[in-house]
Amino acid sequence: MTRQHRGMKTRHLIVRTAAEVFCERGYHGTSTTEILTRSHLTRGALYFHFDSKQQLAETVATVPAELFVPPDGPVVLQCLVDFSLAHADRLATDVVLRASMRLSAEHGSGCSQDAALHEVKLRAVLLRLLQQAHSAGELVPGADPLEVTDVLMGFFTNVQPYWAKTTADLTHRLATLWRYLLPSIATAELLPRLRLHPGPAPQPARPGPGEEATVAMSGSVG
Amino acid sequence: MTRQHRGMKTRHLIVRTAAEVFCERGYHGTSTTEILTRSHLTRGALYFHFDSKQQLAETVATVPAELFVPPDGPVVLQCLVDFSLAHADRLATDVVLRASMRLSAEHGSGCSQDAALHEVKLRAVLLRLLQQAHSAGELVPGADPLEVTDVLMGFFTNVQPYWAKTTADLTHRLATLWRYLLPSIATAELLPRLRLHPGPAPQPARPGPGEEATVAMSGSVG
Repeated sequence: MTRQHRGMKTRHLIVRTAAEVFCERGYHGTSTTEILTRSHLTRGALYFHFDSKQQLAETVATVPAELFVPPDGPVVLQCLVDFSLAHADRLATDVVLRASMRLSAEHGSGCSQDAALHEVKLRAVLLRLLQQAHSAGELVPGADPLEVTDVLMGFFTNVQPYWAKTTADLTHRLATLWRYLLPSIATAELLPRLRLHPGPAPQPARPGPGEEATVAMSGSVG
Repeated sequence: MTRQHRGMKTRHLIVRTAAEVFCERGYHGTSTTEILTRSHLTRGALYFHFDSKQQLAETVATVPAELFVPPDGPVVLQCLVDFSLAHADRLATDVVLRASMRLSAEHGSGCSQDAALHEVKLRAVLLRLLQQAHSAGELVPGADPLEVTDVLMGFFTNVQPYWAKTTADLTHRLATLWRYLLPSIATAELLPRLRLHPGPAPQPARPGPGEEATVAMSGSVG
């Protein structure tokens, strides 16, 4: 292993351990001492790579731009559903991404400016897709792109207090939320074609309250 | 002012100031020094009333039982909507209640046992009302009381990172969420009778995506 390779490994270890502590305790509750204890590194090793706790938090908080690129497809709402579920899945499995979300939501954290990136970028992607779905005639009248974005962001920012350690059901929870939201958002023509499981081949949507509600409502009107 | 009265005033000031700091910085980020600086009290005054930061947090975290008693009424779903909006409104205006929510959501906080009360009790009330609504035939088939409780709890626990200081739109946001959820939950007969504004006199529900979705869906089926 070359010295450069060892250096990169150490840097990754520091970032990952810092992310774990930020996730559990937030910016103010995190000490570099705790990071050193958990990573079994010396203070010298940490300060070789990072100037301060703040610089470390800014590194953790900066999310790669490609994570905010939604998939392409003929139905915009499906792209939105797929993107949101994939993002939830990444949050469930990637502690650094989860920490960036927590730092992003934390007012008064030492890296508030950079940390706002995750939340601001995620909101921008969701809103843009909903506006495109609206333009494409995929939304029912009255479904407001801004309001739906707020509801979805409520879900994503809620990751922070709850899933500091165990996030196994995060994607499942978002799929549940979508099942209850889609009947208020998607047109009746589109609704049965939307699927809540990622994958290339379109499948019929899982039977949920949305569809059954549709049937019940139609029945009572007719 | 009697000595006893002065003592109670000081105790309230400590609890309120502690709640403000807990709200902003969480349990680990809060120091008694910060509480003293903000409240302009001496360390002696604080330790006359409380043994430790932990005991102070436990006091903040303990929510009066009457706050978890929902209103009574002929329609259970309406009682649920009213209770949830009133609780959101109290969270928006009462920093001590908000702090109890944050401490409740914080794993590893020094008062995790007592602090769990707020979240556990709130979840229990919501679930019980949804189960009662289910038994009363107010829910569409497929609307699951446990799932809807999870969605609502997602909203309430989300209070913590976002509304540490400004919570003016909290009730409005919950009303928005309800407008998108109710069409997937309430029967077609009940839906138009539900209202999202608290008050004794029943009013027609505010026109929202739910109702317009119903119309669009019925139209396409008929």
